[in-house]
Amino acid sequence: MDHDLRRRAAAEFFGTFWLAFGGCGAAVLSAAFPELGIGFLGVALAFGLTVLSMAYAVGHISGGHFNPAVTLGLWACGRCASRHVVPYLLAQVVGAVVAAGALYLIASGKAGWVPKGFASNGYGTLSPGGYSLTACLVTEVLTTFFFLMIIVGATAKGAATGFAGIPIGFALVLIHLISIPVTNTSVNPARSTGVALFAGDAYIAQLWLFWLAPIAGALIAGALAKWLYADNKIYDTLVVEKRAA
Amino acid sequence: MDHDLRRRAAAEFFGTFWLAFGGCGAAVLSAAFPELGIGFLGVALAFGLTVLSMAYAVGHISGGHFNPAVTLGLWACGRCASRHVVPYLLAQVVGAVVAAGALYLIASGKAGWVPKGFASNGYGTLSPGGYSLTACLVTEVLTTFFFLMIIVGATAKGAATGFAGIPIGFALVLIHLISIPVTNTSVNPARSTGVALFAGDAYIAQLWLFWLAPIAGALIAGALAKWLYADNKIYDTLVVEKRAA
Amino acid sequence: MDHDLRRRAAAEFFGTFWLAFGGCGAAVLSAAFPELGIGFLGVALAFGLTVLSMAYAVGHISGGHFNPAVTLGLWACGRCASRHVVPYLLAQVVGAVVAAGALYLIASGKAGWVPKGFASNGYGTLSPGGYSLTACLVTEVLTTFFFLMIIVGATAKGAATGFAGIPIGFALVLIHLISIPVTNTSVNPARSTGVALFAGDAYIAQLWLFWLAPIAGALIAGALAKWLYADNKIYDTLVVEKRAA
Amino acid sequence: MDHDLRRRAAAEFFGTFWLAFGGCGAAVLSAAFPELGIGFLGVALAFGLTVLSMAYAVGHISGGHFNPAVTLGLWACGRCASRHVVPYLLAQVVGAVVAAGALYLIASGKAGWVPKGFASNGYGTLSPGGYSLTACLVTEVLTTFFFLMIIVGATAKGAATGFAGIPIGFALVLIHLISIPVTNTSVNPARSTGVALFAGDAYIAQLWLFWLAPIAGALIAGALAKWLYADNKIYDTLVVEKRAA
Repeated sequence: MDHDLRRRAAAEFFGTFWLAFGGCGAAVLSAAFPELGIGFLGVALAFGLTVLSMAYAVGHISGGHFNPAVTLGLWACGRCASRHVVPYLLAQVVGAVVAAGALYLIASGKAGWVPKGFASNGYGTLSPGGYSLTACLVTEVLTTFFFLMIIVGATAKGAATGFAGIPIGFALVLIHLISIPVTNTSVNPARSTGVALFAGDAYIAQLWLFWLAPIAGALIAGALAKWLYADNKIYDTLVVEKRAA
Repeated sequence: MDHDLRRRAAAEFFGTFWLAFGGCGAAVLSAAFPELGIGFLGVALAFGLTVLSMAYAVGHISGGHFNPAVTLGLWACGRCASRHVVPYLLAQVVGAVVAAGALYLIASGKAGWVPKGFASNGYGTLSPGGYSLTACLVTEVLTTFFFLMIIVGATAKGAATGFAGIPIGFALVLIHLISIPVTNTSVNPARSTGVALFAGDAYIAQLWLFWLAPIAGALIAGALAKWLYADNKIYDTLVVEKRAA
Repeated sequence: MDHDLRRRAAAEFFGTFWLAFGGCGAAVLSAAFPELGIGFLGVALAFGLTVLSMAYAVGHISGGHFNPAVTLGLWACGRCASRHVVPYLLAQVVGAVVAAGALYLIASGKAGWVPKGFASNGYGTLSPGGYSLTACLVTEVLTTFFFLMIIVGATAKGAATGFAGIPIGFALVLIHLISIPVTNTSVNPARSTGVALFAGDAYIAQLWLFWLAPIAGALIAGALAKWLYADNKIYDTLVVEKRAA
Repeated sequence: MDHDLRRRAAAEFFGTFWLAFGGCGAAVLSAAFPELGIGFLGVALAFGLTVLSMAYAVGHISGGHFNPAVTLGLWACGRCASRHVVPYLLAQVVGAVVAAGALYLIASGKAGWVPKGFASNGYGTLSPGGYSLTACLVTEVLTTFFFLMIIVGATAKGAATGFAGIPIGFALVLIHLISIPVTNTSVNPARSTGVALFAGDAYIAQLWLFWLAPIAGALIAGALAKWLYADNKIYDTLVVEKRAA
């Protein structure tokens, strides 16, 4: 692993740590605080702002994926080098797991606290609003599809330079505003995996959906993006990645 | 239909799908969730962020209208080529209808769910706050008028380059903060049409207002913009559209 | 009145209309809607987003003041030509009054509606939280002082070009987050005047404070800005104004 | 103290005043207002927007630190000249103390008001949610660490120019969304000190943590940043600071 790849992996580790710690932290610690709690709106904002802030902080190092589905979707449309995929995915999953551990440590510093879901994603009886597996599958595929369309489009040739982190971060806010009641919003297998490990077997047993659906949505978007943003096929991967926020 | 126009229509289809799915989805799924629901504030944010995110993602392909009133207002001030108007409108309406269908599929994945308005627009007894037809008409004309003034102004010669998607998206947030209680906020005939088809005859019977009022407001803005942003008359439509977001 | 000044006055008229209509509209129509209302947070956002959106839309025409205190503060530090001051102030006050009239028309379209303050500013018994005249005076002077510091600083030589509308708009959000409970937040004599005319004599009798305090804060900021942003004294007024947003 | 340093110190004084006055002001005056209060979400937004707005207003003068931990973290990675550290820290602490005094004056303008914490930070029994000292320590170290990573990264060579104030301001929003229930969120020793002086001995006795933990997190980030953003070591301090926001 050369110096450049080590820095990229570190950027993905810290970015995904921040995403999982910040988004799930807002959900676990602040959402339901008596009277003054931030609710789903505050949690939605928190998730999106993790990506907005880290996209500007380390996006110029790694491209700012922070999400296995994003890495695979970008790889599918030729925006991520094949040799980066595995190191990125590992850094993302490890980052999210360590973040969940740090959050668990903090949350358990309150007397009488019990995990109770721990901001995990779920369907059926584990869906916050009791949505069926089909509804959850469609939601995750569709929202990840659009998330990738926005990521690819906002960093495409012709898009305004330097702005990408804003629409991408706020798209993640929006996705949470739509789908927290459905799946507690994943669109990110790493984020789902980290907290599920602390939430118990029932959540771990549903993790397959939050790997399958986001990645499916991302790959479909990657294929479509090749046609829609056709001018970009001449772009070198790294150059495009450097442009991402 | 040449390749350029196919890509433009696709951009408008996906953009309007995202607007109708995301905005109405937040309203239907998340607004009134017990205790943690996002309320009108979260719905307002969701609608605006659909436009902010898609303006950066595909605005450089189609100009990022996602709204028949916007297309007609821009056409009225010479910013949209006449041959684009009909394909854009069709793509927008189809996008919003398909989005409403996808949302219906998801929402009905919750046991016991009933549509009950389905985020449709209405006046009189179908207005969320019971506002009269006159109040609803004035509100929709006025807010769409300003929406167009902001769209044209923020993409005019002299405006800061690359920023337009931010004021345009946040203007839509603002419009919803004002007028959800009045008409449930349309300013977009496509968005109104998509969900009305699933909400029942009473809402379909009121659709005329949400075509008439937004388009009237947009055309007035288009005419005024020709005078206010007079320097821009020398602009070629496509160039200006490319500048949008 | 030449063509340039007519366009400037029109920009200030529409900008201040939008500020008064949008901000006060959110307060009157949406803030206290049962269960789903947007509260002070939504009202704060609405006021700020009127300025953010109009700064990008017409800031390149008039400089985007929309507020007599801003015009006078910018004049005090040499950023607004003396011959523009009176036309700007007139356009702003007329814009805010017409906006209040339009809002009254819409609000009264709901059966049984009564104005009850109509989003007016007040102190003492008319302060939302019952704050004293002194507390209200200090709050308005201090927040308008900082508002002007941010406006002048974000458009000064050395500041990032094109961004100014974002910190300025969000500063107004912030100011409302702080001071709605105190004075219902003015920092803008035109905004205060428009709605007071419809709210009744008690509010009109308190209008003096919402002219005096914001203008005092703005003038102090203007004087300080001359020292703090000393490099900018070489700037021609119009050039600087063109840079605003 | 030469002219340049006087202007820098003034910028840090006003910036930190605004941060402490605006953020704590929203908490003290607006958070718990009956029915329409802004809650933790509004307070989080207020803190972040103080930094976003002042970063654009005076960031081009002083670098826009407004926080002793930020100054020390930037010093640790070679982004702040040693001779600036003490004047910056003094200006920040004085600014926050004066701001707390101004806020106290306003808040006490409401009959029957009692300070009750006065937006101070605390752990154990003074933590809003009753979190242990360990949980509070970990939270403050971790969130300040990431705050600095974002500040350094968003102003690093390779990052998009001019945008830094947006991710930095919104990162502070995010940090508050996570940790208000834990420590009432410090990440800023000056902000903690100002209000504690008015909140009473119990809060003053806990101030050590809100100097120790943020500074520790910032220094760790500074050391890591030297490796992660290695290309930047050739940067002259002032040039980099000028790029900040």
